[in-house]
Amino acid sequence: MPEGEWLVEIFNSVKDMQNKANLLRLQGKKIAFVPTMGYFHEGHLDLMREGRKRGDYLVVSIYVNPTQFAPTEDLDKYPRNFDRDRAMAEQVGVDAIFFPDNAGMYPPHYQTYVDVEGVTQTLCGASRAGHFRGVATVCTKLFNIVKPHVTIFGKKDFQQLVTIKTMIRDLNMDIEVVGMPTTREPDGLAMSSRNVYLSEEERQSALCLSRSLAMAKRLFEAGETDAGKILDQVCKYIQSHAYTVIDYVKISDVDTVEEVQTVGRNTFIAMAVKVGKTRLIDNYVFGEDLNIPYSDER
Amino acid sequence: MPEGEWLVEIFNSVKDMQNKANLLRLQGKKIAFVPTMGYFHEGHLDLMREGRKRGDYLVVSIYVNPTQFAPTEDLDKYPRNFDRDRAMAEQVGVDAIFFPDNAGMYPPHYQTYVDVEGVTQTLCGASRAGHFRGVATVCTKLFNIVKPHVTIFGKKDFQQLVTIKTMIRDLNMDIEVVGMPTTREPDGLAMSSRNVYLSEEERQSALCLSRSLAMAKRLFEAGETDAGKILDQVCKYIQSHAYTVIDYVKISDVDTVEEVQTVGRNTFIAMAVKVGKTRLIDNYVFGEDLNIPYSDER
Repeated sequence: MPEGEWLVEIFNSVKDMQNKANLLRLQGKKIAFVPTMGYFHEGHLDLMREGRKRGDYLVVSIYVNPTQFAPTEDLDKYPRNFDRDRAMAEQVGVDAIFFPDNAGMYPPHYQTYVDVEGVTQTLCGASRAGHFRGVATVCTKLFNIVKPHVTIFGKKDFQQLVTIKTMIRDLNMDIEVVGMPTTREPDGLAMSSRNVYLSEEERQSALCLSRSLAMAKRLFEAGETDAGKILDQVCKYIQSHAYTVIDYVKISDVDTVEEVQTVGRNTFIAMAVKVGKTRLIDNYVFGEDLNIPYSDER
Repeated sequence: MPEGEWLVEIFNSVKDMQNKANLLRLQGKKIAFVPTMGYFHEGHLDLMREGRKRGDYLVVSIYVNPTQFAPTEDLDKYPRNFDRDRAMAEQVGVDAIFFPDNAGMYPPHYQTYVDVEGVTQTLCGASRAGHFRGVATVCTKLFNIVKPHVTIFGKKDFQQLVTIKTMIRDLNMDIEVVGMPTTREPDGLAMSSRNVYLSEEERQSALCLSRSLAMAKRLFEAGETDAGKILDQVCKYIQSHAYTVIDYVKISDVDTVEEVQTVGRNTFIAMAVKVGKTRLIDNYVFGEDLNIPYSDER
């Protein structure tokens, strides 16, 4: 793209972003919004491309939200590169980046939090204390600042998507939520900003996540509906790979995120696995497509 | 007012109210909003009159919100009279009443709550478990449904006002909050829908609340700044009246609602007192006006 042909607007201040959103709404423009923590990969860009189609004005937020990290987690070392992100956002036609700092988002005496209760109790909610409270809170704030008509989330963080949908429904937020399929590397690894943490050998082992999902899909398509039996094979397969420690692997209802015994079309298998020091997640909704290349997994 | 000259619009459904709000905003109209639990008295009408001045379109909600009542409280017997409320709202020029039912506000699988932490820990927050969580949650919902530019609350529920202001600031809700002085009966009793619970003798005893505030005001104006000394006299005065049981009497900072030792212009005295079976509250911000008629209290 020739220099100067596209210029993404950068908003650092809550008030400036909100004023822009108010103006756009008065003009009858449709605002699409993709909240992110930055360090973009193709997965983020796919969300933005969808947002570009669905809105007149596309806002992306870049904010590594401290309240969704537990004290023991990787907040400080989470990868960041604003200039690279801005260039990538421009490539896919983003109109504005909202890029606030912590002082603007959580000023002194900050004390309000949004709790989504049921759907956050298991899976990552059980492993990551306060994580979804932080996600729900920051998304509420971002929605009130950006005032989107439509917001786009990835299905890779499936429980996050369910949490946001539940919150929007319960709190009567007038926002449409679009969930987009997980974007994968050519070999099947789900794209994640955290993949940069992986050594070459860990990167190879990490393929067991997506391949185990492909295995679950094949078992289901071959007629297996016993969740316990599918989980058994999936866990054995993951455990047969070096550097892996399973945090959880579960099959749950897509609406309530409650564990199920019987696998069906409204259920999904989700997993969190530590590969070396890096915690990775992946999931598959039974009955949907899953583009994992052929592999001769055991 | 001649019949048919004014007709308040009634919205029962969340979606209809939200669509109306969207239309008004697209037309550039300013929406003013007074949330209530109904059973109107002059205090409510004063809030509406202020809203009438501040907005192009004035919405009042009537909803006895179950999530702000503790299990032991008076949810079921809370007074209700929709037809009377509608007529009174029409008299002061309300444009619309939002009058939802519980199934519309808290459908099955409802699970999202808003917690304002610091300012809700003491006073009524300490006595009424979950009360402010319910208030913050329902107000978030109502704000998302009615989409007001400005909302009007009474200072009689002072801690509620601080909670709402804190929540609006923290969650970046783009809403102006106006706090209105407490409306009082000619003898000084703060107006409250719960006053109908009082027997004639209790009604007379209940005057000790407002009169004790006048006492605190006089002590402060005479130079007393020791919170303990003022509280001492106030409590003794209240306890000298029949049927009274003090829940709390405290002097706190107007922003943080933390107790203070020294009385000054950013502090307020607040009390909750059971008079018979009826729990009444009242408060006074030091340095402000307080129109309590002369009385020869001991």
